[in-house]
Amino acid sequence: MPAFEIPQIATVVGGHTTVHDDYQGGVEAIIRLDPEYPVETLQGLDAFSHVEVVWKMTRARPEDIELHARSPRNNPNWPATGTFAHRNHRRPDQIGISRPRLLCVDGRDIHVTDLDAVDGTPVLALLPWFEEMGPRGPVDEPAWVKEMLPNYWADSSARP
Amino acid sequence: MPAFEIPQIATVVGGHTTVHDDYQGGVEAIIRLDPEYPVETLQGLDAFSHVEVVWKMTRARPEDIELHARSPRNNPNWPATGTFAHRNHRRPDQIGISRPRLLCVDGRDIHVTDLDAVDGTPVLALLPWFEEMGPRGPVDEPAWVKEMLPNYWADSSARP
Repeated sequence: MPAFEIPQIATVVGGHTTVHDDYQGGVEAIIRLDPEYPVETLQGLDAFSHVEVVWKMTRARPEDIELHARSPRNNPNWPATGTFAHRNHRRPDQIGISRPRLLCVDGRDIHVTDLDAVDGTPVLALLPWFEEMGPRGPVDEPAWVKEMLPNYWADSSARP
Repeated sequence: MPAFEIPQIATVVGGHTTVHDDYQGGVEAIIRLDPEYPVETLQGLDAFSHVEVVWKMTRARPEDIELHARSPRNNPNWPATGTFAHRNHRRPDQIGISRPRLLCVDGRDIHVTDLDAVDGTPVLALLPWFEEMGPRGPVDEPAWVKEMLPNYWADSSARP
């Protein structure tokens, strides 16, 4: 099957400097739009509480891709689940999708919090979060997700 | 800035056949995983109520990209907003991000409803929807979004 080229439009500046599984909270970062895009392309974005950000996991290596089932975080208490039932860097796309809170827009700098991408990360897409485009109807997930993520958004200053 | 190659992993089969702004509801479709990926890569996905799908807008043309502010759907009642304050095909990425409801997984076929991508669309990423990864805290959006989308999920059979 073909591959598609998606251009980098922005870069994460500041925020987290190392990749961690948990303790992603309490950190501000900037999504800095490339100067080739006019400031006008961000007009009105500040009316949204959240943005949706698609970013490339450039700290992951192609050889990290694993096309089989495994227990999340290799914890045998959780069921073996396939590559596409995880959100980590072992998928072929090696992209992350995050929905940080928008703090303010200053020129080409979008200030956010709750962005779980590290300093220097290439941003491929930046969209406003439309409530209407969230999951519709009752939302459910298996128990292992909740058991895995109690500290995901814990304050990074409390990281052990 | 560089571009990144993201491989197509799956294809939308069935569902909508033409691109429309509204009336996306009431249609089932299949996300068909490419045979190069073992069936095991989908193991456990069916425990989630929703998936997150990143797809390429192949019906859009590169010349559709517009790097300025414009009123949504060119409706002068709504404020001019920039390229990155819209979710349409005029952005440089020309990708869509949808969160359809998962109906069942049958081999490499993921049956879904509420997928606003047309038959034949290349799928670049398929992830489970984790509630923990949704927007955190109060969510807000400008009035024009709600005014624009009352019929977005209306039943496609009612399309005028």
